[in-house]
Amino acid sequence: MAKRRRKQQTEFRRRTAPGAAPGTIVADPEAPKSALRLLAFGPDKVEERHLTSVDEIKPYLGDWPVLWVNIDGLGDLGVINALGEMFKLHRLALEDVVNVHQRAKVEPYPDNVYIVARMAEISQSRVGGDQLSMFVGKNFVITFQEHAGDCFDSVRDQVRNARGRVRSSGPDFLAYLLLDAVVDHYFPLLEQFGEIIEDLEDRVVENPHRLLIARVHETKHDLLVLRRSIWPLREAVHALYREPLSLVAEETRLHLRDTYDHTVQIIDLLETYRETASSLLDIYLSSLSNRMNEIMKVLTIIATIFIPLSWVAGVWGMNFQGGPEAPLNMPELRWALGYPLALTVMLLIVIAEVYFFWRKGWLKAMTPSGGEKKLSNGLPDSTEKK
Amino acid sequence: MAKRRRKQQTEFRRRTAPGAAPGTIVADPEAPKSALRLLAFGPDKVEERHLTSVDEIKPYLGDWPVLWVNIDGLGDLGVINALGEMFKLHRLALEDVVNVHQRAKVEPYPDNVYIVARMAEISQSRVGGDQLSMFVGKNFVITFQEHAGDCFDSVRDQVRNARGRVRSSGPDFLAYLLLDAVVDHYFPLLEQFGEIIEDLEDRVVENPHRLLIARVHETKHDLLVLRRSIWPLREAVHALYREPLSLVAEETRLHLRDTYDHTVQIIDLLETYRETASSLLDIYLSSLSNRMNEIMKVLTIIATIFIPLSWVAGVWGMNFQGGPEAPLNMPELRWALGYPLALTVMLLIVIAEVYFFWRKGWLKAMTPSGGEKKLSNGLPDSTEKK
Amino acid sequence: MAKRRRKQQTEFRRRTAPGAAPGTIVADPEAPKSALRLLAFGPDKVEERHLTSVDEIKPYLGDWPVLWVNIDGLGDLGVINALGEMFKLHRLALEDVVNVHQRAKVEPYPDNVYIVARMAEISQSRVGGDQLSMFVGKNFVITFQEHAGDCFDSVRDQVRNARGRVRSSGPDFLAYLLLDAVVDHYFPLLEQFGEIIEDLEDRVVENPHRLLIARVHETKHDLLVLRRSIWPLREAVHALYREPLSLVAEETRLHLRDTYDHTVQIIDLLETYRETASSLLDIYLSSLSNRMNEIMKVLTIIATIFIPLSWVAGVWGMNFQGGPEAPLNMPELRWALGYPLALTVMLLIVIAEVYFFWRKGWLKAMTPSGGEKKLSNGLPDSTEKK
Amino acid sequence: MAKRRRKQQTEFRRRTAPGAAPGTIVADPEAPKSALRLLAFGPDKVEERHLTSVDEIKPYLGDWPVLWVNIDGLGDLGVINALGEMFKLHRLALEDVVNVHQRAKVEPYPDNVYIVARMAEISQSRVGGDQLSMFVGKNFVITFQEHAGDCFDSVRDQVRNARGRVRSSGPDFLAYLLLDAVVDHYFPLLEQFGEIIEDLEDRVVENPHRLLIARVHETKHDLLVLRRSIWPLREAVHALYREPLSLVAEETRLHLRDTYDHTVQIIDLLETYRETASSLLDIYLSSLSNRMNEIMKVLTIIATIFIPLSWVAGVWGMNFQGGPEAPLNMPELRWALGYPLALTVMLLIVIAEVYFFWRKGWLKAMTPSGGEKKLSNGLPDSTEKK
Amino acid sequence: MAKRRRKQQTEFRRRTAPGAAPGTIVADPEAPKSALRLLAFGPDKVEERHLTSVDEIKPYLGDWPVLWVNIDGLGDLGVINALGEMFKLHRLALEDVVNVHQRAKVEPYPDNVYIVARMAEISQSRVGGDQLSMFVGKNFVITFQEHAGDCFDSVRDQVRNARGRVRSSGPDFLAYLLLDAVVDHYFPLLEQFGEIIEDLEDRVVENPHRLLIARVHETKHDLLVLRRSIWPLREAVHALYREPLSLVAEETRLHLRDTYDHTVQIIDLLETYRETASSLLDIYLSSLSNRMNEIMKVLTIIATIFIPLSWVAGVWGMNFQGGPEAPLNMPELRWALGYPLALTVMLLIVIAEVYFFWRKGWLKAMTPSGGEKKLSNGLPDSTEKK
Repeated sequence: MAKRRRKQQTEFRRRTAPGAAPGTIVADPEAPKSALRLLAFGPDKVEERHLTSVDEIKPYLGDWPVLWVNIDGLGDLGVINALGEMFKLHRLALEDVVNVHQRAKVEPYPDNVYIVARMAEISQSRVGGDQLSMFVGKNFVITFQEHAGDCFDSVRDQVRNARGRVRSSGPDFLAYLLLDAVVDHYFPLLEQFGEIIEDLEDRVVENPHRLLIARVHETKHDLLVLRRSIWPLREAVHALYREPLSLVAEETRLHLRDTYDHTVQIIDLLETYRETASSLLDIYLSSLSNRMNEIMKVLTIIATIFIPLSWVAGVWGMNFQGGPEAPLNMPELRWALGYPLALTVMLLIVIAEVYFFWRKGWLKAMTPSGGEKKLSNGLPDSTEKK
Repeated sequence: MAKRRRKQQTEFRRRTAPGAAPGTIVADPEAPKSALRLLAFGPDKVEERHLTSVDEIKPYLGDWPVLWVNIDGLGDLGVINALGEMFKLHRLALEDVVNVHQRAKVEPYPDNVYIVARMAEISQSRVGGDQLSMFVGKNFVITFQEHAGDCFDSVRDQVRNARGRVRSSGPDFLAYLLLDAVVDHYFPLLEQFGEIIEDLEDRVVENPHRLLIARVHETKHDLLVLRRSIWPLREAVHALYREPLSLVAEETRLHLRDTYDHTVQIIDLLETYRETASSLLDIYLSSLSNRMNEIMKVLTIIATIFIPLSWVAGVWGMNFQGGPEAPLNMPELRWALGYPLALTVMLLIVIAEVYFFWRKGWLKAMTPSGGEKKLSNGLPDSTEKK
Repeated sequence: MAKRRRKQQTEFRRRTAPGAAPGTIVADPEAPKSALRLLAFGPDKVEERHLTSVDEIKPYLGDWPVLWVNIDGLGDLGVINALGEMFKLHRLALEDVVNVHQRAKVEPYPDNVYIVARMAEISQSRVGGDQLSMFVGKNFVITFQEHAGDCFDSVRDQVRNARGRVRSSGPDFLAYLLLDAVVDHYFPLLEQFGEIIEDLEDRVVENPHRLLIARVHETKHDLLVLRRSIWPLREAVHALYREPLSLVAEETRLHLRDTYDHTVQIIDLLETYRETASSLLDIYLSSLSNRMNEIMKVLTIIATIFIPLSWVAGVWGMNFQGGPEAPLNMPELRWALGYPLALTVMLLIVIAEVYFFWRKGWLKAMTPSGGEKKLSNGLPDSTEKK
Repeated sequence: MAKRRRKQQTEFRRRTAPGAAPGTIVADPEAPKSALRLLAFGPDKVEERHLTSVDEIKPYLGDWPVLWVNIDGLGDLGVINALGEMFKLHRLALEDVVNVHQRAKVEPYPDNVYIVARMAEISQSRVGGDQLSMFVGKNFVITFQEHAGDCFDSVRDQVRNARGRVRSSGPDFLAYLLLDAVVDHYFPLLEQFGEIIEDLEDRVVENPHRLLIARVHETKHDLLVLRRSIWPLREAVHALYREPLSLVAEETRLHLRDTYDHTVQIIDLLETYRETASSLLDIYLSSLSNRMNEIMKVLTIIATIFIPLSWVAGVWGMNFQGGPEAPLNMPELRWALGYPLALTVMLLIVIAEVYFFWRKGWLKAMTPSGGEKKLSNGLPDSTEKK
Repeated sequence: MAKRRRKQQTEFRRRTAPGAAPGTIVADPEAPKSALRLLAFGPDKVEERHLTSVDEIKPYLGDWPVLWVNIDGLGDLGVINALGEMFKLHRLALEDVVNVHQRAKVEPYPDNVYIVARMAEISQSRVGGDQLSMFVGKNFVITFQEHAGDCFDSVRDQVRNARGRVRSSGPDFLAYLLLDAVVDHYFPLLEQFGEIIEDLEDRVVENPHRLLIARVHETKHDLLVLRRSIWPLREAVHALYREPLSLVAEETRLHLRDTYDHTVQIIDLLETYRETASSLLDIYLSSLSNRMNEIMKVLTIIATIFIPLSWVAGVWGMNFQGGPEAPLNMPELRWALGYPLALTVMLLIVIAEVYFFWRKGWLKAMTPSGGEKKLSNGLPDSTEKK
């Protein structure tokens, strides 16, 4: 788990030091350099550029119905500040852009709306996810991402190729498309968890291995992390389509309601998985108890059969010296049928004990396949619809 | 559980790929072909037809008070799109029709209301259920089902034979009848679960078998799946009878309140079953512990009786050479009553140990029927009403 | 538990078949015949009659301030339908009267209020209870009960003898009295459960018997059933005194608030019992673990003392042939004090082991009364009020 | 627990029989006689008297700004009825005064406010508490207590000595003072529970005794009882300072908000204690499991070392008769170094097994103090404030 | 845990005695003397002084836009009372200042707002924290702390150096800065808990030591204490930015929303840690069960192999005297190959048992590294963003 510990520590690394003045924007020294990309479009025109400085945006201001400025990497404070000034972004919001541990939220400011979402992602076999910060204004959408690489290619395609209604809509629809892309990328991740949990279910019943429980624990923890990402996202989407923000058009609200439905579906699945994972522990513990029972039965059967026999053998192994002067000293040792008799006594003891175990039903469990076939789940194979 | 894994995978199969433009309708290639059926009726006329193309609906438009178009199978995108255009169904709703993993919901659109419900069903011994998508407009109800075969025959009978008030009511009443049929079909399913759980209760106490716990787990999972179906259905029905939808008449609301009551009853039963199933695990674990105790008692009694005896026999089996020169070397071996004395010593040890076990109350449990008969549940056989 | 299974099955028996037209009233063929009883009263007159047909009610209509018609047994559909027509009872409500698995509820209809409550009762050692259906109109109360025998005798007495304010009040006050009687009859039932749970508490600590846990499970289930009865009843009573129903007078509302208080008290007690019952399982499992520990200690002490001793005896029981040519072969067997030395060695081993066990504190637990007396609960015997 | 059973039974004893007419006041035959005490005061005068009959109150009516009539003991129905008539107390409220199992509540009646609270108290080593019933009117406060002795002496002192603002305020402030006294007396009780729980924590880790778990159970039950007292009290105080009762002055509301804060603090502590107590069970069970592990390790080490050794000794204790004609029959018995070799074999077995146990880490646990000292809780001794 | 007990007792020490008149301010005799510090500032001036008496504040009143009076130590009742009179602080609030066990809260009084918060701190290896009491008026902020040393140095720096907007804002912004500093100081504390819990996770799986569970319990308790501090703080901050307090400017509200976000983040982390800590117990118990299983397997394998062998050896150690007159008495002892045969019999028994154990899969677990390497968590190393 050493890898994980490093991960967790970074979770706190880039936070502004407690005590700094509010609105202080401190770039994480390890954050990658910022790469700017501009996508300007209107109903009948589209232009896409990689920018080297914020000033190159100026010519587009005002002329284009929608400007989408995307920044990959938060290492360049100058860029962030310049954008903040150009588009009048609030300093508290910019502080949140750089401190990448925000919960998903929607914060309306006088001139624009600040939206935070967390993108579902797996890195180093752990669930995590970059923070997506988005400012939506009258004619712009500005998105900040922690690293290059995102799930927005399909959105860009829709813009470039004028698919759907994005080109003829405002920045609110673009913001919806981006949020929708973020939400939809939770599904493949959940699918993986669905498979992991089913795999664990099979293994736990068949072979309750010690490390399995650590795996179940990790999976529960990952689901908890996912839950911390998606619950506030659901609330944020809900706020976006319910609250009277003048920026969001009526048609976009219909679409946001759809996205909201998706977040609810994700949470539904997540909770089911969490409950199933919790239940796995119970199966695990009962499997362990079952195995213990089995082991103890074997020990008990063998021990209770042979310990008395050993004693019987021990008795006749005593060296009491019989003979004429002590006729009571183990005369059976001198009988002609002494040994066969001894063996018979032992046999009788064995028979008595095996009968006792059989009556207790302990011998059945020794044959692993006994009676297990009858266990159907009581449901018919299918129900007829009437 | 291999069967189940396949099931789960399909749960994600037909989802629109993340990144597709919203409103993109992609038919599942494995979905069955669409079969159309029309049921048009008014207070004094009724007509029923199997259609081969959507265009055949046109002549009925406008003339009939209520048109019910039912589509079985979602494999035919042309049909769905054509219906969408003819009845002005929103593309986001049509996308949900095809992506058959929606939660039950009621979504009002400007021209109609889109209702999703999940039908209770058992297939391949697992709980599942097709998605029922329903559009209710001014003079039509359109229902989409995943497969042929449904629980609406009684509704069709009521329409054909003018039973009840359906013929003289609008499409809202028909929609209510369909929802009510969906909800009522949860009851027989729950009845089966009630029996399954009672069966498990009996078995868990009598014979805590290893596979039982996997069965309890599966049942809990099935109940969880059912819960995920019925909770949103309850909310949807509630929204339908509470919200000021102009489509829903006052009398229909009274009936919907009744349906809502049924969903609450179903949830009540479901939660009781879930709690009982959870409780089963406790019984199971305590049964296991009880058995372990019993096993250990047997082992302990046998071992603690015979191990000392064996030692006693071992002592007198030592080969110390006595005789005149070593009178202290096991003189008892040479006594005339040495052997009977040895046996007496052993007998005394046994008596002492049995007395010890008896005082500890361990011997009682060996006789399985001891004292169990007295365990009534403390309730009188019946209470007199005063 | 066979008895119980039968019970559960009946829980579904009398439900209207799924798919029947709503408002279809199907009598349970096994329901007892309906017996009608009329109690008509006003401030200064009262008349009581057993009726043979519904028509006999007609002469009383209009003349009497309050008519109370009570029907015991739901087997007679004609009676129910005739009453429905005479008093304009809604068909959906009548359907619920016959399907006796309703949750407690208050349903206002245009002409009257339909109230369902469940009467607390024990039958066949299981908690259950008949459904009481009540219609309250401007000048009538109609009550339907599943079987003869109820808890309303005291109400009838109050009417007959003009005790309290019932004679001078309207049907709303009569309805309150009936509800109050239903609610108050939960208290003696709870009292029984209080005793049962205390009995179980004592037994579980003293003697964690295998069947006890099934008893705890059953009690929890019974409390769950009771909870399912009383929670909706609480909501119903709350609705009745809060909602602006013109039928309910202000003074009656004060009384209903009192009844509401009683339901809250019942729920309080119920939840306490449920929590205590859940906690019993923990005590049970820890008692089991304790016993297991005790058993294992006995086994371990006996086995670890005697197994090494047996080995020592076994060593000197080996047949190595010593003598002049093999002086190293067990010379101790030939020593004059060999045997006493051997016994001394064994004694030293026993002493060492007993010391080891004593230091571990295992010997204390063998004496059952050791140190237990000191366990007071840390609370003083009483606190002085200052 | 016999003592407790008696306690519980009384919990139901004094309840009005189900079926009695509402407003029926039945005195508990075992309740102590009622003792009346009057405290009349205004800004500049105060008079205190023990009364023998209710009529003696009359001269004070109207003349004094605040009359406080306190009744200790509910055995005298005449007194209660007379007070009811004199101050126009509602009969339903008086019924609750006598049935001393009410939840804390605030019930506004037309002429006065009826307040119920439960006083924290320990009697017979169990948590309990008398019911305080209080009526607050325009110029009077009437309090009913089950027994003599209360926590109001400080309130009386404030009145007598004109400390604080009580003499210059109305009856609402007196009621607040009484409620505040009741609430504040929960703190010392909770302090005791804090100590009890810490004591249990220490004991459970050190010595998981069988009776401890019954103690934990009892403590949880007591906390549950306290919770049932304080939760409704919190709601009642909240209602009192929030609801628009004309009787309660603005300044008194500020003070009631303070009392409300105290109830919230009490509930906070209570919930912490409850959670800690629940957690104790887990520690207990894991302590038990640990001990079991330790016991089993001792048994396993001793048994697995000596059982093979015994077998080795047993092999050479066999009586196969060797000699020239059977040179293969145990020739080692006749070797000159046979016995030393046998002992060496045994020693090697012991060494191998000890090595095996050492590698498994089982020997460490045998030395109880091994490695435990390193377990600090990971928190630094104190944090510097920056 | 003795240290802790002392701690807990102090938790009640300084509370005003129950029964004191409300508004009674009793200084804790052990509280440190009060040290006053004044920080007066406006947009263009700032002055900082250590005061020896309250009267020294007077000259500043009225002249300065914002006065910040900070009192360290609550031992000097005169100072507190004098401040109360000078700034018109309500006596109930001053009582809460001295009784340092308040929950965080915001209490509006007519002239000012009283705010309580708890500062996160670790002392004596336990989580605790001084109470910060703050009064915010039109032109002043008064803060009371239990001890010298706080987390406000950065706030003072901002004031002195006119960093940020504090100098140009009113006392509401200063109050926000102080609250924000308190909230932000929870993060490093949580970071420590994150590390502690990861450390525990590693240890619990590797070596389920008995004291670990006490550590987990302590950590859960500490998190519970933290939770009791931060939840009401969250509510207080929420109240401050939502409620219509005229003292709080619109811009300050935006900043308070940010602080509120931080409290929600803290609670999120806290709940994750709590859930993880709870889950640790499950891992611990299952680790214990696993070890028990392993121990029992070793015992069972060794015992079931050697106990029968010992018996076999014992049989041939019996002294039945064969010979011509008793040819059936152990003739095998006299066979030429008797001993080799005996050894072969024993070998066959061993082989049969080892085969039995191998089929049961018990031998695998003996090799600790067997098959464990395959246990990846099923997640890919990283997901590609599309």
